[in-house]
Amino acid sequence: MIVVVKAGTDGGEIRKFMAYLEGLGVSVHHSQGKYQSVLGLVGDTAEVSRESLEAHHLVEKVIPVQEPYKRANRLFHPEDTRVDIPGPDGRMRHIGGEFLGIIAGPCSVENRDQITAIAVEIKKAGAGFLRGGAFKPRSSPYSFQGLGCGGLELLLEAKKAAGLPVVSELMAIHHIELFEDVDVIQVGARNMQNFNLLRELGRCRKPVLLKRGPASTISELLMAAEYIMSGGNDTVILCERGIRSFESSTRNTLDLSAIPMLKRKSHLPVIVDPSHATGLSWMVGSMAKAAIAAGADGIMVEVHNNPEEALCDGEQAITPDSFAALMKDLEKYARIEGRVLE
Amino acid sequence: MIVVVKAGTDGGEIRKFMAYLEGLGVSVHHSQGKYQSVLGLVGDTAEVSRESLEAHHLVEKVIPVQEPYKRANRLFHPEDTRVDIPGPDGRMRHIGGEFLGIIAGPCSVENRDQITAIAVEIKKAGAGFLRGGAFKPRSSPYSFQGLGCGGLELLLEAKKAAGLPVVSELMAIHHIELFEDVDVIQVGARNMQNFNLLRELGRCRKPVLLKRGPASTISELLMAAEYIMSGGNDTVILCERGIRSFESSTRNTLDLSAIPMLKRKSHLPVIVDPSHATGLSWMVGSMAKAAIAAGADGIMVEVHNNPEEALCDGEQAITPDSFAALMKDLEKYARIEGRVLE
Amino acid sequence: MIVVVKAGTDGGEIRKFMAYLEGLGVSVHHSQGKYQSVLGLVGDTAEVSRESLEAHHLVEKVIPVQEPYKRANRLFHPEDTRVDIPGPDGRMRHIGGEFLGIIAGPCSVENRDQITAIAVEIKKAGAGFLRGGAFKPRSSPYSFQGLGCGGLELLLEAKKAAGLPVVSELMAIHHIELFEDVDVIQVGARNMQNFNLLRELGRCRKPVLLKRGPASTISELLMAAEYIMSGGNDTVILCERGIRSFESSTRNTLDLSAIPMLKRKSHLPVIVDPSHATGLSWMVGSMAKAAIAAGADGIMVEVHNNPEEALCDGEQAITPDSFAALMKDLEKYARIEGRVLE
Amino acid sequence: MIVVVKAGTDGGEIRKFMAYLEGLGVSVHHSQGKYQSVLGLVGDTAEVSRESLEAHHLVEKVIPVQEPYKRANRLFHPEDTRVDIPGPDGRMRHIGGEFLGIIAGPCSVENRDQITAIAVEIKKAGAGFLRGGAFKPRSSPYSFQGLGCGGLELLLEAKKAAGLPVVSELMAIHHIELFEDVDVIQVGARNMQNFNLLRELGRCRKPVLLKRGPASTISELLMAAEYIMSGGNDTVILCERGIRSFESSTRNTLDLSAIPMLKRKSHLPVIVDPSHATGLSWMVGSMAKAAIAAGADGIMVEVHNNPEEALCDGEQAITPDSFAALMKDLEKYARIEGRVLE
Repeated sequence: MIVVVKAGTDGGEIRKFMAYLEGLGVSVHHSQGKYQSVLGLVGDTAEVSRESLEAHHLVEKVIPVQEPYKRANRLFHPEDTRVDIPGPDGRMRHIGGEFLGIIAGPCSVENRDQITAIAVEIKKAGAGFLRGGAFKPRSSPYSFQGLGCGGLELLLEAKKAAGLPVVSELMAIHHIELFEDVDVIQVGARNMQNFNLLRELGRCRKPVLLKRGPASTISELLMAAEYIMSGGNDTVILCERGIRSFESSTRNTLDLSAIPMLKRKSHLPVIVDPSHATGLSWMVGSMAKAAIAAGADGIMVEVHNNPEEALCDGEQAITPDSFAALMKDLEKYARIEGRVLE
Repeated sequence: MIVVVKAGTDGGEIRKFMAYLEGLGVSVHHSQGKYQSVLGLVGDTAEVSRESLEAHHLVEKVIPVQEPYKRANRLFHPEDTRVDIPGPDGRMRHIGGEFLGIIAGPCSVENRDQITAIAVEIKKAGAGFLRGGAFKPRSSPYSFQGLGCGGLELLLEAKKAAGLPVVSELMAIHHIELFEDVDVIQVGARNMQNFNLLRELGRCRKPVLLKRGPASTISELLMAAEYIMSGGNDTVILCERGIRSFESSTRNTLDLSAIPMLKRKSHLPVIVDPSHATGLSWMVGSMAKAAIAAGADGIMVEVHNNPEEALCDGEQAITPDSFAALMKDLEKYARIEGRVLE
Repeated sequence: MIVVVKAGTDGGEIRKFMAYLEGLGVSVHHSQGKYQSVLGLVGDTAEVSRESLEAHHLVEKVIPVQEPYKRANRLFHPEDTRVDIPGPDGRMRHIGGEFLGIIAGPCSVENRDQITAIAVEIKKAGAGFLRGGAFKPRSSPYSFQGLGCGGLELLLEAKKAAGLPVVSELMAIHHIELFEDVDVIQVGARNMQNFNLLRELGRCRKPVLLKRGPASTISELLMAAEYIMSGGNDTVILCERGIRSFESSTRNTLDLSAIPMLKRKSHLPVIVDPSHATGLSWMVGSMAKAAIAAGADGIMVEVHNNPEEALCDGEQAITPDSFAALMKDLEKYARIEGRVLE
Repeated sequence: MIVVVKAGTDGGEIRKFMAYLEGLGVSVHHSQGKYQSVLGLVGDTAEVSRESLEAHHLVEKVIPVQEPYKRANRLFHPEDTRVDIPGPDGRMRHIGGEFLGIIAGPCSVENRDQITAIAVEIKKAGAGFLRGGAFKPRSSPYSFQGLGCGGLELLLEAKKAAGLPVVSELMAIHHIELFEDVDVIQVGARNMQNFNLLRELGRCRKPVLLKRGPASTISELLMAAEYIMSGGNDTVILCERGIRSFESSTRNTLDLSAIPMLKRKSHLPVIVDPSHATGLSWMVGSMAKAAIAAGADGIMVEVHNNPEEALCDGEQAITPDSFAALMKDLEKYARIEGRVLE
């Protein structure tokens, strides 16, 4: 941790301040510049509160050197993490390492026929995971809010019918027991910093798909993962789904450079959701291909058998036929990168 | 609602599409431009899903005319809402109308002496409300997370000692019973779109202080208020606390133009939190004054008796002495605006 | 153009306002909603000033339907534009259509050996165009500002030596004569809205590579292209090079979804500069591949023979060897997309 | 300057690297942390290129300690700068120190009657400076581009008629001679990083009003000022006029916290343009008051005698009557702050 001392602080005050800092259990190096002094704090700086230092009357600013996350940090865990997910068909599926996880399905479960038909079609096209929302976070209280428990039951029926593991979003801690047979629990972008929920998922022994908040930095996303991992659950899959910028022609701005950055800073797998990022079905294919080219460990795509009648986010869903065509393209890209669609 | 039809769509298709739209219960006006057709939908468009229309194969884009919020909308409720909060001293305090609510106190309750001493000091300086966090949303799982229930008890002791109503943040639905004697429930910026929590607060009969998410638009903030109000709780206080921008010299960018905009679109009172917005104690005073000048209905300021030793956010807290001096300035500003500090 | 009338305006006033609008030469359709009236303006709305309408006392807001650009608009020019650039080796090179233009070279020309050596190496690796800055826009007046005219001469020597057409940035109108033998004139991101410069380039008969400003919308980029095209110069190449967002781990946020969006709205070719976008040499390769996958018509990459000693932006330059390796990858991607590196 | 060395670099390499750095003329302090080494560079680090260091194979990242601007830096010039501007009425006017400069006038000069009438009215209301654009940067080539030289002449006539010094925007270096009788030269937001223009203005002996680019950081604004000042022109007035954020209900997001931040980092006066920031005439008053409360050294407001017929930006202009009423309010605010409207 680097502490920049206010200009004009005299030597005696600096020495006293250094003694105080050393009293916190760190060693301190002093660099005296022409106008300003800089202190380098070395040792177990985790015990030193950045905020308290910033409140200190001699301090101009504090610059952290070490990233604040530990378990999610590649520095302490150099190998890639691969998340393994057993399916109802007895097959183990993977996300990370050489495996590109392909998660597809509708925004929300609407009825038995819809979810089962889609599940069967995406499996045929090669998807490895079925997604479907039962509890939906909607920005309007007057919009369709999902079928709730009933939707979850229909999703689990489709899971069996198609033989695919399922991914669904958990919105509230008290629903967690309902998710026993859901294979991957999704934390939505708006809940990325719902710390009580994250802490609860740290106690789970189930993979968590953690979506980046639309205004969250890469560092904040990794700190959210750290909340889950610090509770003992290391199976976290990160998901880039667009960030908020001034550009309004797409719903969000898909930050594909987050993929190599996250993979450099962390060992966790990183997937991309081009459907929510762009909000435009005709753009999903090109962004999915770009994600694979950029090094993503998988993608999550909204597929609906009748987007024009979808109860939720139809404008961003592609049809099963378009999805099957996209899979053919993705396979070529995966092959170039030496990877396997899963 | 305006629907722009894709260029090149022929007249017959447009007529069929108009018939379909009329079947949804709205009337449709057709404007044929040189290159594009535009349809104006009039009537009860709440029943028409924007998303489904956007997914329709003939639609280029959909432009909503009406704001999506109803109860929060000034159009249907032209008078300003004033929130009345009874205090433990038997006095009724107000936020909105002519009253500028002044909420002050530490980021988090640390111990009995700290919270009580601060409470007494801010009351002496003229504050109307005591704030103090017991459950703290921290971006790191390794930071101080608040004293929890014990902190809430100490806050309630300080409430009695100083005779001030209290404001504290609720982070999880299952804590709601603990907040029975908390006078105003705060929803933190990161929970602004925690829809389950909002819905629960709609069932409460207690004022809710709703903070704008750092990446939430004004329209989204009002939709979050609508979640609470649609449940029957009309006592919502909006709080601007900085939005995320590219500028990094302040923690967030305080959006003071949100004050007149929110007050034009909605009848709800709007307060400002300059402490979280800037993250810099030396800037709190000038931003508090600017907020009053811009028409805010109150401010929320972090005050700590010893910022250098604060367990949380010390860098943005001002001392009780600075707060007392600031109050003198605010009083002059309030007088110009014909308002009263509360 | 859609005009939303202020709530509460009475029918007589609306009729008078409609008559006024019709007097401007457009036809007006009136849709009377429950709370608000909406007017659809049809015909030659180019003559109607949006700003004046917004200033009108009866107007709540104005919503344009038609994009404001004409020559850059795909609606009026459905086929892709391909820019053809003759090289000093007698060969015609292309950007757009099936051709992926590969532009490579150093941030700035430093000396004869440097620029010639790099030129020869990138040509060997398959690049079609040499880039090199002589006039450099630097955010500090104390940084190296480029070699100026002398740099341009060295670039033109390298052009001959390697047999490659060259791209270089023009910063000021009065330099334009110096650029006679430069094959493609680059407008830097900070000059994207230097309208005098754009207008001057409209009078040129030379391809212009127009970089998107870091805070410019897609619509503004196309309006900047329109400035050039309205002067009669239709050979504009658009370049996405990262936009400003709150994320600070990369220099800018590369907006790859801008590629399909620009190509849908416009017929102009779109290339990507991953070097400036990310500011990180190790990320250039993955972003270049992603750009091709997303449908870009080319890339522009900084290559330096000794990045550690570069006078400018060394942190984002890759070596000629890395570039040669990247070209092998890009070729595979191009083949999948049915395109040819140029 | 702080250099963070890549994790895993061995001691011998670090020693060699330190020797290399010392060879550049700085002294180097080494702090060996648990996982990473940090080097503190002290002395004349202006000679050390940050970019080259970042390109070095042993370097993880470089963290500058000193701000890159010198002449604009308050560290080296602790007293506030006050800019003095002589008027055609023989009176010296000031911006900065105790003086709040009030600049008012239309977006663009339209004809003799318009500009003279407005000039006389704003003077009567107490404004100290007349603004009016002759060369207008318009995002569309099809919009009114200003009257050019003729407009400048009319502005200078109005200057004499009203006895007020004038402010007008310079868009191109070759127009500079036309501006001889313009008292303050404005650099528009889109030209904030037009470095050739800035450099030219450094050679001028005339105050420059430098507007912050909508996507420029505070540090970049000060570097732009540094360009002008490094040429010998110290009379720079900074102007905050809104930055680009995701919020779209106002044209830009007015960053009022930039005022105290700029005044802490620099000695230059800072004014605010609420008209361009918000784009909404009804919001100009509240934002002007907030700017004064936040510590601004003046404001710049668009005033038009007939906003509905304005050729440019009518939606953000206020009438002379509204301006006169606003001046009365501003006077009260100024008095509280111990300042004088000028």
